Amino acid sequence: MPRYKVTIEYDGTHYSGWQIQEGLPTLQSALEAAFSHFYNQPIMLHCSGRTDAGVHAKAQVAHYDAPQQRDAYAICKGINSLLFPHPIVVTRAELVEDDFHARFASKRRHYEYIILNRPVRAALDIHRAWDIFRPLDIDVMREAAQVLIGHHDFTSFRSTECQSKSPEKTLETLSIEREGDYLFVRCSARSFLHNQVRIMVGTLAYAGMGKMSVADVKAALDAKDRRAAGITAPACGLYFMGVDY
Amino acid sequence: MPRYKVTIEYDGTHYSGWQIQEGLPTLQSALEAAFSHFYNQPIMLHCSGRTDAGVHAKAQVAHYDAPQQRDAYAICKGINSLLFPHPIVVTRAELVEDDFHARFASKRRHYEYIILNRPVRAALDIHRAWDIFRPLDIDVMREAAQVLIGHHDFTSFRSTECQSKSPEKTLETLSIEREGDYLFVRCSARSFLHNQVRIMVGTLAYAGMGKMSVADVKAALDAKDRRAAGITAPACGLYFMGVDY
Repeated sequence: MPRYKVTIEYDGTHYSGWQIQEGLPTLQSALEAAFSHFYNQPIMLHCSGRTDAGVHAKAQVAHYDAPQQRDAYAICKGINSLLFPHPIVVTRAELVEDDFHARFASKRRHYEYIILNRPVRAALDIHRAWDIFRPLDIDVMREAAQVLIGHHDFTSFRSTECQSKSPEKTLETLSIEREGDYLFVRCSARSFLHNQVRIMVGTLAYAGMGKMSVADVKAALDAKDRRAAGITAPACGLYFMGVDY
Repeated sequence: MPRYKVTIEYDGTHYSGWQIQEGLPTLQSALEAAFSHFYNQPIMLHCSGRTDAGVHAKAQVAHYDAPQQRDAYAICKGINSLLFPHPIVVTRAELVEDDFHARFASKRRHYEYIILNRPVRAALDIHRAWDIFRPLDIDVMREAAQVLIGHHDFTSFRSTECQSKSPEKTLETLSIEREGDYLFVRCSARSFLHNQVRIMVGTLAYAGMGKMSVADVKAALDAKDRRAAGITAPACGLYFMGVDY
């Protein structure tokens, strides 16, 4: 059976995350319904990384085994028609080797987190960014980010429900850029713990507000205790930006 | 009575434009309801430029006369609370001279138009950009834009329902930038005719697709006939970006 890799963009606002849950609207269920309709038989999608409720994606990646080869653009067009009006789009389909695996073959995952930092709430970016009214000190945030980059035990930065066997991860990049009222926190790693990006952003935001010093962030990392880090930033600001294979 | 200038951001998707229309949801009616509630008496807003149904604003400007002076930030907070959950936010309030007028005092208005140029529809940017599947040649679009810059009779580029006395306008800037799959068309002028920006963008898009040559765009301008220009680009891609006073 030919295996396809698909790249998927979605607005996660109204979905209970990627993974199928009985009776709830999920990205996986919407996508598998469209693919199964398209191929006229049940199709299962395997994604690179499950996103939580409310999290968005510019380039989620998944693979599936198809009953027959089809033109890549015809797949996109067909699936996107079937997905309409869901805010979910297959931006690319590619025939890949039989042993390609969206999750296990991924070398690096990229996330972006958008903060709208101004004294009033978002209008155009409702559900698309985290509103922080208090001015954030980007220099302090950048200094705090340096503490987190590298290979660490990220126990303080994972959800208490995280099922990963090891809390050790290598954070390759973590940068913060300001454009007008917007802050873009970008990070990449081979893999992340559950809620790791959101807890890192929540902690950086605390640093930017002056609620935590850079030393506090270092101490939080060393504590290996979820309670030592900052809050979990809201899902709405998080975007799964892509995967390197 | 103290006069205030307010800057307003909104997602125009679900509104029938700025201007009050009996029985329809409009930006003016939502805003005037909030201001009237805030001051406990009827308040009328006068905007810089009425936007059409589905058009967005990063920085619409309006003025109103208040029964008494209030702290500018208190006005923003109070009005934004009353506006919630409308995707409309007052980003700034400023006490201005009594003779300030949002419409008549404006020296320059700025618009941005966003095109998503890729072979599949938008997911994250539904209602926020114009989907054009066919690749656009940005060099041709830029050449065509040069034809439109300057002082011209823009009869070909105004709605047949436009009520402006004169079709002559001075287009100060018209630029096109590409970032990934996105094209940003930005323009500024003291004022614009009804639908002028959307018809210019529709015409530039035709040029970018090869449906019109640069010479055709020049001929369209010279024809002084709406039928000679390209289509009116959809409202969803248009953003009112600000006003200079």
